[in-house]
Amino acid sequence: MTGAESLVRSLIAGGVDTCFTNPGTSEIHIVAALDQLPEMRCVLGLFEGVVTGAADGYARMVDKPACTLLHLGPGLANGLANLHNASRAQVPIVNVVGQHATYHLQYDAPLTSDIEGIARPYSKWLRTSQSSSEVGVDAVRAMVAARSAPGQIATLIVPADVAWSEGGRVAAVAGWAKTPSAREANIERVAEMLRSGLRTAILLSGKALYGKGLAAAGRVAAATGAQLLAPYPISRLERGAGMPQVERIQYVLEPALEQLEEFRQMILVGAQAPVTYFAYPGKESVLTPAGCDIHTLASVGEDGVGALEVLEAGLKPVPTQPEIERVERPREPSGAITLSGLATAVGATLPENAIVVDESMTSGRGMMAATRGAPPHDWLGNTGGSIGIALPLAVGAAVACPERRVLCLSADGSGMYTLQALWTMAREGLKVTTVIFANRDYAVLKREFSYLGVGDPGRRALDMFEIGCPDLDWVRLAKGMGVPARRVDSLEGFVGALREGFESQGPSLIEVPL
Amino acid sequence: MTGAESLVRSLIAGGVDTCFTNPGTSEIHIVAALDQLPEMRCVLGLFEGVVTGAADGYARMVDKPACTLLHLGPGLANGLANLHNASRAQVPIVNVVGQHATYHLQYDAPLTSDIEGIARPYSKWLRTSQSSSEVGVDAVRAMVAARSAPGQIATLIVPADVAWSEGGRVAAVAGWAKTPSAREANIERVAEMLRSGLRTAILLSGKALYGKGLAAAGRVAAATGAQLLAPYPISRLERGAGMPQVERIQYVLEPALEQLEEFRQMILVGAQAPVTYFAYPGKESVLTPAGCDIHTLASVGEDGVGALEVLEAGLKPVPTQPEIERVERPREPSGAITLSGLATAVGATLPENAIVVDESMTSGRGMMAATRGAPPHDWLGNTGGSIGIALPLAVGAAVACPERRVLCLSADGSGMYTLQALWTMAREGLKVTTVIFANRDYAVLKREFSYLGVGDPGRRALDMFEIGCPDLDWVRLAKGMGVPARRVDSLEGFVGALREGFESQGPSLIEVPL
Repeated sequence: MTGAESLVRSLIAGGVDTCFTNPGTSEIHIVAALDQLPEMRCVLGLFEGVVTGAADGYARMVDKPACTLLHLGPGLANGLANLHNASRAQVPIVNVVGQHATYHLQYDAPLTSDIEGIARPYSKWLRTSQSSSEVGVDAVRAMVAARSAPGQIATLIVPADVAWSEGGRVAAVAGWAKTPSAREANIERVAEMLRSGLRTAILLSGKALYGKGLAAAGRVAAATGAQLLAPYPISRLERGAGMPQVERIQYVLEPALEQLEEFRQMILVGAQAPVTYFAYPGKESVLTPAGCDIHTLASVGEDGVGALEVLEAGLKPVPTQPEIERVERPREPSGAITLSGLATAVGATLPENAIVVDESMTSGRGMMAATRGAPPHDWLGNTGGSIGIALPLAVGAAVACPERRVLCLSADGSGMYTLQALWTMAREGLKVTTVIFANRDYAVLKREFSYLGVGDPGRRALDMFEIGCPDLDWVRLAKGMGVPARRVDSLEGFVGALREGFESQGPSLIEVPL
Repeated sequence: MTGAESLVRSLIAGGVDTCFTNPGTSEIHIVAALDQLPEMRCVLGLFEGVVTGAADGYARMVDKPACTLLHLGPGLANGLANLHNASRAQVPIVNVVGQHATYHLQYDAPLTSDIEGIARPYSKWLRTSQSSSEVGVDAVRAMVAARSAPGQIATLIVPADVAWSEGGRVAAVAGWAKTPSAREANIERVAEMLRSGLRTAILLSGKALYGKGLAAAGRVAAATGAQLLAPYPISRLERGAGMPQVERIQYVLEPALEQLEEFRQMILVGAQAPVTYFAYPGKESVLTPAGCDIHTLASVGEDGVGALEVLEAGLKPVPTQPEIERVERPREPSGAITLSGLATAVGATLPENAIVVDESMTSGRGMMAATRGAPPHDWLGNTGGSIGIALPLAVGAAVACPERRVLCLSADGSGMYTLQALWTMAREGLKVTTVIFANRDYAVLKREFSYLGVGDPGRRALDMFEIGCPDLDWVRLAKGMGVPARRVDSLEGFVGALREGFESQGPSLIEVPL
């Protein structure tokens, strides 16, 4: 058995059954092994930012890693920005990166690079496999590292001769790393805080934002009157009718300060204390009011879900039903396109059990309010602030959950970063409806320019913020990659296009000129 | 004066007058400075791979650096793959990368990353500026490093508060680093080798492949009977009618071995000894025959051009006219599309003084033979093997040389990596004619699969190599970004489309289905 075969078999044995990839010559033996092993689904991306972003979206939905297969240092480098986002989403990913044959490195051939150096900034676990007999064990180590709480990026570099040599041995996972429990003292302290009667927020992150974590948090909030919050960068939030009410912290400084002003206490569950994305001269970085007592229930990497359940068990009285979002769909809007009308349209049409991927930036800030009472759904956001994640995330979420509908909301500037994802949606027949908000601006930067106190942008600065001239034609771009697309010019047109998209058996794209 | 203003003024004073960019909030004060200083031309790319690849193309044509302006770690990360190629092209580039305000870093906001770690693998010079009073001097240091032979990537990280604080000071370049001369002993040794009568190749790289370097090499070859060679990864080769004959070393192993078989001696001028891109089990990595005496005239970073001139002066007799390519355009082809016919069409139509950017991969291997006798032109290739460089290179070359025509030859798989470059071509009205060879394959990988001895690829492997299904429609993709485009179905159609492209006042794209 070659090293490559032992690698793939070990990954499959460890539960990794999906490989997002763009391979090259140095990975051919791994491709040959994948060729023989249909237990691993392979999904091709035409650019590695699609590959890593898809692995992120996949992991957010199924709580286990996909692997990527990437071509040498440059292939990994192309995927780094979405690994940045994935590292902030705290998801498990196993990157498999090819390397030149060990004896070939001495020649410094054109594609030679410091792959470990490129991988290090975003890899919590990193190793170059040394022999065909070890690469199976290395795969197990990578999977164990990736699945260590809260979810990590593990990168395994595989030299070509390690892959092609005989002597491979399939390795089995002996057990996953146990997630450390939150410290009892912290749970007791938080219970005290919740009994104090002071206005308290519970800031949730990671697994505390969906499933049994969110359910426990909802009951704690109901029993204590605390407010559940999510950070602006949301990895995955389960929401909609019947779900506990969770407020997302605002992106813009002043509304965020206002939103948090009332809180005297804040409890962190796998979350960092809220801060601004950027510094602004003379303004705050910290969003909580002075004197707000911030305490950690469970730190990043501790079992926040378990801590919430212990906390809940210790609270009296425990209500059987937390305060939940009520079913409340807005009515279908009509008329000229407005941002609030677009949000209303989404609220009116979102199918049950949908996955919403949201990188709508300035165009979509009303979306969450309009979908509070829509049927239950998951909301995935940009966690690291590196734009170009929405379309790849949608690919990964749709691959992970083929029975669910994915609504991908993307700003035009963000969408251009990784538009190649549309091709993968078409090839794989993914049920993704992509909405492009075509304001033809990096609108957030225009706002930030003035906000930073440097006056109004002049013509030369505007040329760096305005992406019209020429206008991007998303209908052509989508059709050019095999995705049916249309442009809408009214809210009723948008509603119709959404409904059609949600009913189709494959991807579609809707361009909304703003 | 702010740090940002001193930075931009220092760059301009040092001769950097072009900035390829995709900025973000943390770079806004630098944008504000650029807004006020029209001496710096700013060119926006919708993805950073376009930005860095354009900086590479620019530098290849004008032998001085452009700067990039990139948004934090992820913006730099998106540009890394083409910095890989640029590092192999040995061109000067000054990257300016924003960073959070120094006091904001402690909060680990979502976009926080190890920017130095991300920059290090491809930066020969790297520094995070510490204060507004120093950032001007840092810019000078970066420019001096970038322009040190053979041309280097220098990365200057600028925290937002360094940019926005007052106290900036414009700094001037005291002098550029002197390029070390080749060692006399090496020149003497090479002169002896050339007198030996043994069959000798001179492998040229960097500045020895154009201008006075190539002219001197041509005269040395003419005087001694040596054969001039270029490595397969060509940064810039001046060629065509009237230019010295230079053979490019073949990409594929066996033809390359055959090509070099005759040589008993090889002289390296700024070049590495030729090796294969990849290792293949049981095959050679080294392309020169056993017993070939390889000697360095000038190593990378030494003055190869000067060494050739010294060498030439010591040789007798020095012919006034080296052996040159004769004017010999092929006749315009017609009929069904074939690879050789496409090459003939390019040879028949290439305008004088054109710049050819070549990432045509398997589809374009006849291009150089067909253009040997075309009017003089420059040929730019993929130097690092990371695909997705052609379109960005074409942007940079066209910005550098607005009076010249650029012909950009790209494989479809390569073009998809950085297709956003088409938008920049349209916005800037660049005279680039892009040809997409649409074979709907990563054809090189199909070949490599069998070549690596793992048999014929099965269906699952082919799904990782074939990029049809759905077919990419490059006419729609180009028009979607504002570039006029057409698909041709005959060689006469291709000739007509090329001629039209070469006469137009802006970009165009031709899709050639194969």
